[in-house]
Amino acid sequence: MPIVELHVIEGYSTQEKQRLGVTLTNAVRFVVPAAPELVTVVIHDISDQNYYRGGKSRLPARAKQDPEHIVRAFLSEMSDRAFESARKRLSSDFVMQFPGTAPMRDLEDLRSWAANRYSRIAKTYEGFDAMQSDGDAAIVYCRGTLSGEWTDGSQFEGIRFIDRFEIQNDLITRQDVWNDIAETRAQA
Amino acid sequence: MPIVELHVIEGYSTQEKQRLGVTLTNAVRFVVPAAPELVTVVIHDISDQNYYRGGKSRLPARAKQDPEHIVRAFLSEMSDRAFESARKRLSSDFVMQFPGTAPMRDLEDLRSWAANRYSRIAKTYEGFDAMQSDGDAAIVYCRGTLSGEWTDGSQFEGIRFIDRFEIQNDLITRQDVWNDIAETRAQA
Amino acid sequence: MPIVELHVIEGYSTQEKQRLGVTLTNAVRFVVPAAPELVTVVIHDISDQNYYRGGKSRLPARAKQDPEHIVRAFLSEMSDRAFESARKRLSSDFVMQFPGTAPMRDLEDLRSWAANRYSRIAKTYEGFDAMQSDGDAAIVYCRGTLSGEWTDGSQFEGIRFIDRFEIQNDLITRQDVWNDIAETRAQA
Amino acid sequence: MPIVELHVIEGYSTQEKQRLGVTLTNAVRFVVPAAPELVTVVIHDISDQNYYRGGKSRLPARAKQDPEHIVRAFLSEMSDRAFESARKRLSSDFVMQFPGTAPMRDLEDLRSWAANRYSRIAKTYEGFDAMQSDGDAAIVYCRGTLSGEWTDGSQFEGIRFIDRFEIQNDLITRQDVWNDIAETRAQA
Amino acid sequence: MPIVELHVIEGYSTQEKQRLGVTLTNAVRFVVPAAPELVTVVIHDISDQNYYRGGKSRLPARAKQDPEHIVRAFLSEMSDRAFESARKRLSSDFVMQFPGTAPMRDLEDLRSWAANRYSRIAKTYEGFDAMQSDGDAAIVYCRGTLSGEWTDGSQFEGIRFIDRFEIQNDLITRQDVWNDIAETRAQA
Amino acid sequence: MPIVELHVIEGYSTQEKQRLGVTLTNAVRFVVPAAPELVTVVIHDISDQNYYRGGKSRLPARAKQDPEHIVRAFLSEMSDRAFESARKRLSSDFVMQFPGTAPMRDLEDLRSWAANRYSRIAKTYEGFDAMQSDGDAAIVYCRGTLSGEWTDGSQFEGIRFIDRFEIQNDLITRQDVWNDIAETRAQA
Repeated sequence: MPIVELHVIEGYSTQEKQRLGVTLTNAVRFVVPAAPELVTVVIHDISDQNYYRGGKSRLPARAKQDPEHIVRAFLSEMSDRAFESARKRLSSDFVMQFPGTAPMRDLEDLRSWAANRYSRIAKTYEGFDAMQSDGDAAIVYCRGTLSGEWTDGSQFEGIRFIDRFEIQNDLITRQDVWNDIAETRAQA
Repeated sequence: MPIVELHVIEGYSTQEKQRLGVTLTNAVRFVVPAAPELVTVVIHDISDQNYYRGGKSRLPARAKQDPEHIVRAFLSEMSDRAFESARKRLSSDFVMQFPGTAPMRDLEDLRSWAANRYSRIAKTYEGFDAMQSDGDAAIVYCRGTLSGEWTDGSQFEGIRFIDRFEIQNDLITRQDVWNDIAETRAQA
Repeated sequence: MPIVELHVIEGYSTQEKQRLGVTLTNAVRFVVPAAPELVTVVIHDISDQNYYRGGKSRLPARAKQDPEHIVRAFLSEMSDRAFESARKRLSSDFVMQFPGTAPMRDLEDLRSWAANRYSRIAKTYEGFDAMQSDGDAAIVYCRGTLSGEWTDGSQFEGIRFIDRFEIQNDLITRQDVWNDIAETRAQA
Repeated sequence: MPIVELHVIEGYSTQEKQRLGVTLTNAVRFVVPAAPELVTVVIHDISDQNYYRGGKSRLPARAKQDPEHIVRAFLSEMSDRAFESARKRLSSDFVMQFPGTAPMRDLEDLRSWAANRYSRIAKTYEGFDAMQSDGDAAIVYCRGTLSGEWTDGSQFEGIRFIDRFEIQNDLITRQDVWNDIAETRAQA
Repeated sequence: MPIVELHVIEGYSTQEKQRLGVTLTNAVRFVVPAAPELVTVVIHDISDQNYYRGGKSRLPARAKQDPEHIVRAFLSEMSDRAFESARKRLSSDFVMQFPGTAPMRDLEDLRSWAANRYSRIAKTYEGFDAMQSDGDAAIVYCRGTLSGEWTDGSQFEGIRFIDRFEIQNDLITRQDVWNDIAETRAQA
Repeated sequence: MPIVELHVIEGYSTQEKQRLGVTLTNAVRFVVPAAPELVTVVIHDISDQNYYRGGKSRLPARAKQDPEHIVRAFLSEMSDRAFESARKRLSSDFVMQFPGTAPMRDLEDLRSWAANRYSRIAKTYEGFDAMQSDGDAAIVYCRGTLSGEWTDGSQFEGIRFIDRFEIQNDLITRQDVWNDIAETRAQA
């Protein structure tokens, strides 16, 4: 039964408004236990000539890219070893934290480090969770299982993992990785 | 510059409206790159005698508890070994998934399993992320480091962990845990 | 899915707002084929100190009485032969039009005229329809069946009737009556 | 002074919105004794890409036909003996109730029945009243006078009548007729 | 933080809406001590087919001309001795009141009167203030300094002046003038 | 026909809202040629617990005093020679500009200067105009006529004057005065 009205300056695409429709619906449902179909979101596009702040008209800010899409694209490029494309998605102060090693800043370092651990790895996704933090960063979680080949040529699969990404200005600023690789090896 | 108006039936507490204020602000900022102080949220409390659906007045649904509070309380009770209290926060179909073991449904099973791994453990929190999923569940992530004592009496600390919780109807339905314990032991 | 917002100056009772909730819902459904429970009506009570027309605050007009209630009360009083009470519900220019006679203005005339037709009559209601006309008058229809006793002492029942009332300023200005009495007598 | 805002998904014609403007104005005036020119109705057309329920965009439902137009067309076709056209306006469960006869379901039955009563009949309209009921049906009343020729060739005119119609899904489901024909004949 | 929403029938130009944006912002700031950039004005253009008063759609009234522009143009035409153009900006009941003389109604009278005072005069503007009065007239103030040549050929400059104009129906109905000419001459 | 909705945080007095009602009405009428009684202003008081900017609730700013009241009080105190009270209404950087003298900053200077010009003076008001400038200052104009006694004991009256005041933070920062005193004396 809750109704959300969003007033924004005209200029967002259908897809961007769709994202707003979903995220505002979920924002309400975070507190109010309404079934989704009882939450109505109405977006009021305001022509820039109809919006004034301090008596001055304003232009709409370009929408942020969908942070989940950024992460999916990055993971796909990493999987395809398209490192040059993947690197373009990273902020200049990007940091990644993998299990059992110091923080790394360069995809090249990651490659070297991984080369000692497995000769091939692939991710099967179980789910993504994405949200805006109170700060500037959007947060994207990706979880699922890893499969691949150890450096000794033996195979593995079904190893649980979760990645946490922070995105600012459409660039990935941080990646934190947890997984059961060590657990699996310990049990092997 | 975006303005969000939320119309809900009167009856939510100041704290619940504060949560709506924050979550709606972040929902907008998930798509629109506005600084937080440029996002205005106005909540219109509608007296139940002023709201009609199908010509009938309606009562407001009781707000959901803050899922992050539920998780913090659960973790605190587990830490204090207040298992009876902790158990009351679990849904009847609760499942938990820890590294290197099969899914467990009972806190007693967790205790037995853990007893073989460490004699004492404590969590230091680095951050929580909470959001409503598209489905019924709210998702809460908690990450930080573990410290404690192995079963051989030696100490550990600074071991990275992340927990993912699903909450429905104010009860925890699922907990997934990842950490670097095995990695740490392998390196030890 | 339609949403109606009504802004009125504060001062209407819960019952009056309930009537507005129903009548606005039906107004929308007169054109838009929405199921009732998909029509939301929100009434915004505006404190008289928050409403200005021509820069001047205004007082709310007292609500009209429910015209269907006025008609029901009038019919009940007529049935109870409480003519004095019934007469207070009539406008000074009240006219009534019954089958087969000239327009009458006085309940006394009606009594005399009816005395030649039946010695006792009662109405069983099948339904009321009430609405505001484009003009000043509200219209109320009442339909059902008549039962009673002819002047010769024989009984009748199930004779179809319909009454149409016009109400202005909470007073009945006009009553038009149609029924199957003559038809029934012709067939007798 | 009341202000009505209606939010609907874009797609209604000027004529359909005009009907909403009138019916919402009258709905308010059914309770609030405001002169018509003090009731403002504002319709907010919401682009389907700006409306979300349950996070999903929706298409507007096609407007209902004006039920008064349906009844006027039906009566005109009946008057012109265009029975085939008239029949298309009837629901499959259509019932009509005329004075002094059992309910009829077929226009052919009506013709046969009427042939014994008059050789020609025409309606002069004094007024129509139309409204949405609380249920699915719209209600249309039509009243005025009948003129024509009895089966014996004599003429009649000025006989009061009223018809009540129920319309669902743009089809007539029910017609109830009252008139003074028997009264007139009895007095003849 | 105040938000102003203005609902008007569609048809005003960008420039007219810009004027509304500024004047509404200042109207709020006349009472609420908000910094200009914290006052948001949103104009809702309502298509004439979406606006009904008394159930009838309405056409937007043509905007008033900017009264400050009218005054600036008049003053410029007077300065250029384009009296024919200037005269077209005056209402038929125009009155002007200058220091030390009776009210005048005709620009020709002003010319004759001024010819005895100075042979040439020019205005340097320091500022304009414009506002709507509670009545029909808009008020425009113009202040600054006068320079020119006395009838004896000597020069003057820096003489303070202020003009007050009333504008109705886009025509100047009244001009009141104050200045320090006499003061200056007295001191000379 | 225009409708203005103002959303402000709850806390303004009836009188302050009355001022907003008038000033917003006039702001609209500055551009739109609507009769005052066709301009509706609705103020939505938003409880501070229902208003969030940047996810934080806010307190309403205390309303500005009515600048016309400040000027009227100041003029009244000056007239009553209540200089101490009058001085409290002046900003620390107050400047006043009278005809034929340098700018003055102190009421004492004004007194000395005036003592050479007249022994007694009183103002009869014809009208006040007040408005918010685009900047921080409110502007108040006061015009009318002066009467009193010259230093030689002779009387004067009907001398036109106009004062312009600037008010910031409820204090007068500037007073500019024009009048026909010199003109009158020159003609004497």
